[in-house]
Amino acid sequence: MHPDVRKIKVIGFDADDTLWVNEPFYRETEKQFCTLLKAYLNEEEINRHLFQVEIGNLELYGYGSKAFMLSLIETAILVSGGKVTAGEIRKILELGKAQISQHNPLLPGVPEVLATLASRYRLIVATKGDLLDQERKLKNSGISNFFHHIEIMSDKTEDHYRKLMNHLDIKPDQFLMVGNSLKSDILPVIRLGGYGIHIPFHVTWQHEEVLEHEMPDAHYMTLNTLTEILPLLG
Amino acid sequence: MHPDVRKIKVIGFDADDTLWVNEPFYRETEKQFCTLLKAYLNEEEINRHLFQVEIGNLELYGYGSKAFMLSLIETAILVSGGKVTAGEIRKILELGKAQISQHNPLLPGVPEVLATLASRYRLIVATKGDLLDQERKLKNSGISNFFHHIEIMSDKTEDHYRKLMNHLDIKPDQFLMVGNSLKSDILPVIRLGGYGIHIPFHVTWQHEEVLEHEMPDAHYMTLNTLTEILPLLG
Repeated sequence: MHPDVRKIKVIGFDADDTLWVNEPFYRETEKQFCTLLKAYLNEEEINRHLFQVEIGNLELYGYGSKAFMLSLIETAILVSGGKVTAGEIRKILELGKAQISQHNPLLPGVPEVLATLASRYRLIVATKGDLLDQERKLKNSGISNFFHHIEIMSDKTEDHYRKLMNHLDIKPDQFLMVGNSLKSDILPVIRLGGYGIHIPFHVTWQHEEVLEHEMPDAHYMTLNTLTEILPLLG
Repeated sequence: MHPDVRKIKVIGFDADDTLWVNEPFYRETEKQFCTLLKAYLNEEEINRHLFQVEIGNLELYGYGSKAFMLSLIETAILVSGGKVTAGEIRKILELGKAQISQHNPLLPGVPEVLATLASRYRLIVATKGDLLDQERKLKNSGISNFFHHIEIMSDKTEDHYRKLMNHLDIKPDQFLMVGNSLKSDILPVIRLGGYGIHIPFHVTWQHEEVLEHEMPDAHYMTLNTLTEILPLLG
């Protein structure tokens, strides 16, 4: 990392799959959803339709668990050719509620790293999820107090990070973003002149590998686990 | 208002029914929802069930249009005794999407007042709705640029406002909140030592009247329209 890393004042952490496990719970709900509807269509086809419905609803619903639930219901109506029963829809609501209620385990080293960094930097959560869901996950995992506040972002483009930095009253080179997505957490921040630390979650790793060669070394690093951040900043 | 009103640095505006018309669109969707399900139960009973379902889901879903849509679907299954059809559920999804997509007209004087205040105070939106919905409404009504940023709050209790003030790095007496709800926008802010300007929306007015006698005059005023704020602060 660049020696000017000492200028950093605020560290933003992505939440889902950076601080805690999340994506596997979505996959599990989808699996149960497909099992529920298997009389109408096979798993592969249902997942294909679900993806299309989610993309179609993104502009209107945004991200998060409630958007996901509404898209599940719409997909159920679609793939069943209008034959899905009220009982099956009720079951989908129950699957969604169970997913919202479940506990998301922290990823390795999270509390220790946050405890060390919180005394020297202003830490924030910067996430696209539902505020209520993210507050609940922070509280349940006992790490709320390490964060100054939660920033809910409707998307994570350069423009959204520019607004965030303006809101935080900091310059790009005073901001470091830590996250599991090169596309959403790292690239837009680097392009603005900020710093990024990429900690791939096993699911996203292969898919985004190619992008890494585009990244300027001085403002960017990939780590295997969050604990490796401490020798760099601690 | 208290002479120390000149200390105010940040003015928070509630969004729905303070900046723009919102509640009547929810009522209209509910009316259409009841018409759709009239074969199963009468309007009064459906509304009673819907209210109970919404209260029951509040902790899990929070506020906003997607929470509302999910509660409408759950209520439809309930009031139909599990007989509601996939076609009727699809219609409920369409009602919800239409409500999210519609244009919310600004309340009288909003752009003029914001234009005047924005040069002298930091203005923010402080709202319980979905971020994406509120960003869309701000953008559609052409008033985004007057605001420093949008604060999405999972609830509006004293504790939430305390966190907000901490996040904004201001003391309570540097904050003024403008909103249509005494309970959510004014009382918790006043209790913390901040200022509140209450602009009742016609629907909430009668219901909350009684609370006004509990309010300390120096930190609180009720106005009929937003334009009346200018002689006080402008």
